[in-house]
Amino acid sequence: MKTIPLALLCAAALPAAVLAQGPSTPDRVAALRDAALTDDIAYDITEGLTTEVGQRLAGTDAEARARAWGVAKLKSLGFRNVHIETYDMPVWVRGEERGEILSPFPQNLSLTALGNSGATPASGLEAEVVAFPSIAALKAAPPAAVRGRIVYLTHAMMPTQDGSSYGASGIVRRQGPTVASQMGAAAIVIRSIGTDHHRAPHTGVQMFADGAAPIPAAALSIPDAEQLDRILKRGRPVRMRLLLTPRQIGTRQSGNVVGEVPGRDPKAGVIVVGGHLDSWDLGTGTIDDATGLAITTAAAKRVMDAGRPLRTIRVVWFGAEEVGAFGGIAYAKAHPNEKHALMAESDSGADRVWKFDTKVAPAAIPVMDRIATALAPLGIARGNNSASGGSDITPLAATGIPIVSLRQDVTRYFDIHHTPDDTLDKVDPAQLRQNVAAWTTLLAVVANDPTELGPVEKGGGE
Amino acid sequence: MKTIPLALLCAAALPAAVLAQGPSTPDRVAALRDAALTDDIAYDITEGLTTEVGQRLAGTDAEARARAWGVAKLKSLGFRNVHIETYDMPVWVRGEERGEILSPFPQNLSLTALGNSGATPASGLEAEVVAFPSIAALKAAPPAAVRGRIVYLTHAMMPTQDGSSYGASGIVRRQGPTVASQMGAAAIVIRSIGTDHHRAPHTGVQMFADGAAPIPAAALSIPDAEQLDRILKRGRPVRMRLLLTPRQIGTRQSGNVVGEVPGRDPKAGVIVVGGHLDSWDLGTGTIDDATGLAITTAAAKRVMDAGRPLRTIRVVWFGAEEVGAFGGIAYAKAHPNEKHALMAESDSGADRVWKFDTKVAPAAIPVMDRIATALAPLGIARGNNSASGGSDITPLAATGIPIVSLRQDVTRYFDIHHTPDDTLDKVDPAQLRQNVAAWTTLLAVVANDPTELGPVEKGGGE
Repeated sequence: MKTIPLALLCAAALPAAVLAQGPSTPDRVAALRDAALTDDIAYDITEGLTTEVGQRLAGTDAEARARAWGVAKLKSLGFRNVHIETYDMPVWVRGEERGEILSPFPQNLSLTALGNSGATPASGLEAEVVAFPSIAALKAAPPAAVRGRIVYLTHAMMPTQDGSSYGASGIVRRQGPTVASQMGAAAIVIRSIGTDHHRAPHTGVQMFADGAAPIPAAALSIPDAEQLDRILKRGRPVRMRLLLTPRQIGTRQSGNVVGEVPGRDPKAGVIVVGGHLDSWDLGTGTIDDATGLAITTAAAKRVMDAGRPLRTIRVVWFGAEEVGAFGGIAYAKAHPNEKHALMAESDSGADRVWKFDTKVAPAAIPVMDRIATALAPLGIARGNNSASGGSDITPLAATGIPIVSLRQDVTRYFDIHHTPDDTLDKVDPAQLRQNVAAWTTLLAVVANDPTELGPVEKGGGE
Repeated sequence: MKTIPLALLCAAALPAAVLAQGPSTPDRVAALRDAALTDDIAYDITEGLTTEVGQRLAGTDAEARARAWGVAKLKSLGFRNVHIETYDMPVWVRGEERGEILSPFPQNLSLTALGNSGATPASGLEAEVVAFPSIAALKAAPPAAVRGRIVYLTHAMMPTQDGSSYGASGIVRRQGPTVASQMGAAAIVIRSIGTDHHRAPHTGVQMFADGAAPIPAAALSIPDAEQLDRILKRGRPVRMRLLLTPRQIGTRQSGNVVGEVPGRDPKAGVIVVGGHLDSWDLGTGTIDDATGLAITTAAAKRVMDAGRPLRTIRVVWFGAEEVGAFGGIAYAKAHPNEKHALMAESDSGADRVWKFDTKVAPAAIPVMDRIATALAPLGIARGNNSASGGSDITPLAATGIPIVSLRQDVTRYFDIHHTPDDTLDKVDPAQLRQNVAAWTTLLAVVANDPTELGPVEKGGGE
């Protein structure tokens, strides 16, 4: 930490009796919020983790180093009960990856394997390309048109502020390989699920359905996909060569890193906030999701320093999100009967929060409205009461736990999501601080207010 | 061509006697200029070359395919005397390239070999990193601090509209490897000479001075350089591993592709315009320099279609510029005694022309001012009479031939220059058309005006 948080300086001037408890008046919440706009904690966590560990693919030594780094960091920040909750998981690792167009216009392609991709023979795989605009069009094709070929899905994702385009686009990545395999394709390439124009292909998880043999599955960078589109438009047969040598290396240990701000009332329930510690292996996992855990941790630290809250705040740095939310599933299994007052995750980058969605009981709406009022000066609009959570909190939250969502502007998130370009320079420190201020506001209120936030309907989430 | 050029439609309404000669009145020049703002020829050339050939490293089969493509294209556009002028040159080709930090924080690096880089052993090379901010600081270092180590030059290039930052920054790339080799370094890495923030390292030529043994020489992408800076700042020794397997493959043939618009007066001298056909091997050579030859060729075509000019316009698609301007040198050797009225090259991307520099005899300044007046509506300012030419025209122009420079805005050029990101999507069609309009204006005037443009001082150029 480069500067002394303003909140501490202010707090120092207050009587000890007031300090003993967390902030519960609008004035104190507003002061904490505004002090958070000068926050350096979140940037320091982001810079440290991405520099000193870098990429941290789930289940690898790098993720284990990240857990050790996290334990040391949370302890140094003053969190209590800092520990790791481990679990086992299957691990897939990337190998060599090359692609080229052999004819009619020989040239190299920039591509990367999708998670759980099968491998080509060591000498590579050559086949003719057959293109489809969608999964539906692929399914409708005569099997003979697909068998033995390299399927190419041309779907293009458009940027949206709320990320709503990711759902429909992501289907191409998640279902395409299984459908292509079931139809007898030799391999599949997709246009990257992303919105940039750089030679930085977007990886991402997919899982072959039972009975679908793993085939090589890769994403082309968007300029390469557009190049292939132009080549196909010439109307001549296009032959492609792929060399992909990823492998499944079996079961490995992963884990969630946990730290707490102990509350005054153990019966008031735990508030879980966090992000995910693992990342894809191509970049340094900065906006996905070092910033998410940095934002939530910085906010919890700022609320901790303002006085002991009523409720316990538990910061969780989930492991193995990218490859199947194993950390979130393990958390749900490890804490089935504990009272959770609220869960919330930050996992959409580091750009500003623009909307506040909730999913709480009707009786708790006034508390949420108080939070919304306190968030408004940050430029955050009140959203609906049908929030969906992050993928790490969903496994437990779906059992009926209240959630909130501080929704980030993701207009440029999918420019770098899951690419080699997910690096520190992409973080805008001012927007990162706005996130910390929003989360500080949220936690200052809900950790110090006794209102029961549930019950909510089971299910939902993402 | 997707549309019929407006100039042709207009010309069709003019009497045949007017059509027989090229445009020589301000009104006809202005009409040609404005019609060029709807040009599709330049985009079609750019799209075709970068799609059907892609990268075309000098001296390789790809560059030979590009020459064949160029001959067919120039013929189809109606140019005369279309031919290839060949020459031999030494060829260096890229191999595998990998970099990683071994300690204290293990992680992969995105880097690419610089032209003529030496190779590491097949098993790679490991050494401690020693960083310097400049060539001067490297030279001032005690030899023992450099010997056996991997030198890292941290110099950061800033974007400028006129490209003036490239000269001083480029020295790091051009001289760094030789100086490091002479001081006994095991290898050298530099921060890419570029202005972006993507994991796309910038290659570029360098030549080891006589007596300097070729050592491995690579450029880190800018995010990787900044990551290395942060790691070094922690103060612990940094060990790096490099694997680079480029090689010199000996002498190969390259060539310049030439096409002409024959003039009415052979004694009036030839006007040479063009760009370079070769590219670096990482991208598809779109803004460097498919657009340069596309812009100049489209302009020559438009002037050709407006009536036979007084002077011959010779379009030259120079080969082997990137690796040492072998094409420009060969052109100068092949045309030593021919009268050249003017030479001009486009080799700074596809963004708009903003300034018009000249280097002509004082008596020809009024002609240049007429051109400047005709360029003004395109947003182009009159520059000075000390123009420097492109690297392909310099070898001949330095013997005393008049030159002009339609200077492009290069603020974003060095974001993608010499990187994998030099692809078609980076072209702004509107700005490309403004370039065509500027070159059409230039050629319409100088190809139809009998004023002698020389003599000019020998030397100069870039």
